[in-house]
Amino acid sequence: MTTKTTRRALITTAAASAAAAPLAAPAYAQGKRELKMATGWPKKFPGLGVASQRIGDAITQATDGRLTVKVFGAGELVPPFEAFDAVASGAADLYHAAEYYWQGKSTAFNFFAGVPFGMTTAEHNAWVYHRGGQELWEEVSAGFGIKAFMAGNSSAQAGGWFNKEINSVDDLKGLKMRIPGFGGKVIDAVGGTAVTLPGGEIFQALQSGAIDAGEMAGPWIDLGFGFYKAAKYFYNPGFQEPTSAESLGINLALWEELSPADQTVIRMAAAQENVMNPADFIANHSRSLDVLLTEHGVELRSYPDDVMMELGAAAEQVLADAAAADPLTKKVYDSYMAFLAEAASWTEQSEQAYLRARSMVRAG
Amino acid sequence: MTTKTTRRALITTAAASAAAAPLAAPAYAQGKRELKMATGWPKKFPGLGVASQRIGDAITQATDGRLTVKVFGAGELVPPFEAFDAVASGAADLYHAAEYYWQGKSTAFNFFAGVPFGMTTAEHNAWVYHRGGQELWEEVSAGFGIKAFMAGNSSAQAGGWFNKEINSVDDLKGLKMRIPGFGGKVIDAVGGTAVTLPGGEIFQALQSGAIDAGEMAGPWIDLGFGFYKAAKYFYNPGFQEPTSAESLGINLALWEELSPADQTVIRMAAAQENVMNPADFIANHSRSLDVLLTEHGVELRSYPDDVMMELGAAAEQVLADAAAADPLTKKVYDSYMAFLAEAASWTEQSEQAYLRARSMVRAG
Repeated sequence: MTTKTTRRALITTAAASAAAAPLAAPAYAQGKRELKMATGWPKKFPGLGVASQRIGDAITQATDGRLTVKVFGAGELVPPFEAFDAVASGAADLYHAAEYYWQGKSTAFNFFAGVPFGMTTAEHNAWVYHRGGQELWEEVSAGFGIKAFMAGNSSAQAGGWFNKEINSVDDLKGLKMRIPGFGGKVIDAVGGTAVTLPGGEIFQALQSGAIDAGEMAGPWIDLGFGFYKAAKYFYNPGFQEPTSAESLGINLALWEELSPADQTVIRMAAAQENVMNPADFIANHSRSLDVLLTEHGVELRSYPDDVMMELGAAAEQVLADAAAADPLTKKVYDSYMAFLAEAASWTEQSEQAYLRARSMVRAG
Repeated sequence: MTTKTTRRALITTAAASAAAAPLAAPAYAQGKRELKMATGWPKKFPGLGVASQRIGDAITQATDGRLTVKVFGAGELVPPFEAFDAVASGAADLYHAAEYYWQGKSTAFNFFAGVPFGMTTAEHNAWVYHRGGQELWEEVSAGFGIKAFMAGNSSAQAGGWFNKEINSVDDLKGLKMRIPGFGGKVIDAVGGTAVTLPGGEIFQALQSGAIDAGEMAGPWIDLGFGFYKAAKYFYNPGFQEPTSAESLGINLALWEELSPADQTVIRMAAAQENVMNPADFIANHSRSLDVLLTEHGVELRSYPDDVMMELGAAAEQVLADAAAADPLTKKVYDSYMAFLAEAASWTEQSEQAYLRARSMVRAG
């Protein structure tokens, strides 16, 4: 009850502030409106910028230009981590980014992007669409005058790039590593120092030595960013984000002003990208990894089991601490962890067991 | 070149026959049109019928009724396996079904639904959307005057329902089993008899003894169909469809007549369902399995490894034989198998390796 009241109060405030912002209401009344989309990555960058553009184009085409989306690359309209505030204030209409970028606003946002040792993409979609995740997300976002939908996914993240081998958890101590969200807090917990940087700033930081290690997504994107020029070892799989959802955020006052048809189109554009985009990553990771290994001399490694076990214990504590520190985060955490237990059990005996059998059969 | 010529000839024929069918062209010219959707399952049935309705509603809402979709359950407009011919002739405008239902038209259709020991849902999406699958599918479908899109997925299929344990491949000999597509041909190859039945007819066949065993999807849907009343053992995972895509087919002449905006909306409605629907299955399988095991006394089993190995060898031969028998099937097979090799290798070292680590960490 308290939460609901607080939420309503916040919505009112946010809506009022959004209403004061320069929304093109008269133009929309005449049937046309331009929507500005701020994004968390370079314009037209493979996988990510392309996804933002595809969302914008889908909305423009499906409405026959009634809504025309103009996509801005990271820094073109606002810096990537300011996209949230821009949409909340009405300076931008939409953002396409990852929710852990806003963890400074609420720790709860991390659960709508990716969680260490947490759900896979398929499981996360199940929780958000059908087991209460979307409703909780709307509760968190509405407090800031925003509504958001899943809108892409860079799939299971690789472990990242290092210039030394990680043979025990001690090798992570003192390491400065680009790794956002809860994954970063896990690195902090085992004695490293997590740094949060937008994708476009990782390479330079790695090359200059400002950071010792970093992870972004996986072979395809990482090849594009050129990380292999600054680090020798590529670790896979990661522990930090077994799924890494992108999201489409929209100013809540604007959303409520849209017609049901336009709301449906925006919801569909986000959902469409939530299947097109992870497929793009899966379509490109394997051949990109080949290029990294054969053309750029990258060496492939995996975290040893005992490192995974220690990271797992740290992750459990990081999540429990986050839940203990904030009631809304706890509400999201409880829902997430309950479905994770259910989903992990099902995955173990379905897709995971199938994959084991397929590997056995393919090995002959 | 030969294939292309043949294809064009077929398109012309199909388009001509569709044009002769009662399309509501004048109504559409005035800006409104009703589209009839024939489906492969009972109306509003959990997971499947609900998905058909959600696709129809999304199209209706996004176009503000300019296109209004009327959804018919299996048998209401035409029997499920006749939905394809109905759309080809223009008697229906859309179908929502599974492509292996049309394997009698072309064996190639199986590759757009699910393949034994083949791609998972994430891999299949990658192949269809980004590695040439959609283009091949359109080549196959256009020969019948149809265009189709992925539009849902009942996710990795369970092994199915049996009244005896399967301890060796000999236990499958002589068994009459409902299992469609290439999976059915694998059962035939190891000495069983595959039967293809629409979902709504499996229970009665199982109960009457017309079939000895059957698979439909997994715990959620299978609980709904009541299979536990007619069989004791539930096997998981299956080998036959590690993904099981649903598809939205549309009359090709109608498609070409639609505006770019309406085409975009239909494409988006299909893609949206391709993420909403598999998520619905993952959201419900685990708790449905609990009901089966605890309330209905079902016994859970897995195929032994040596049975999987023999089914795997049979599957390899079934696919190779299908490719050898038909040039268009071979073209699809070659593309599918090439990407499967690439994708399986990536999955092994990413999501599959992550899942192994997660199981280890969760077990403590």
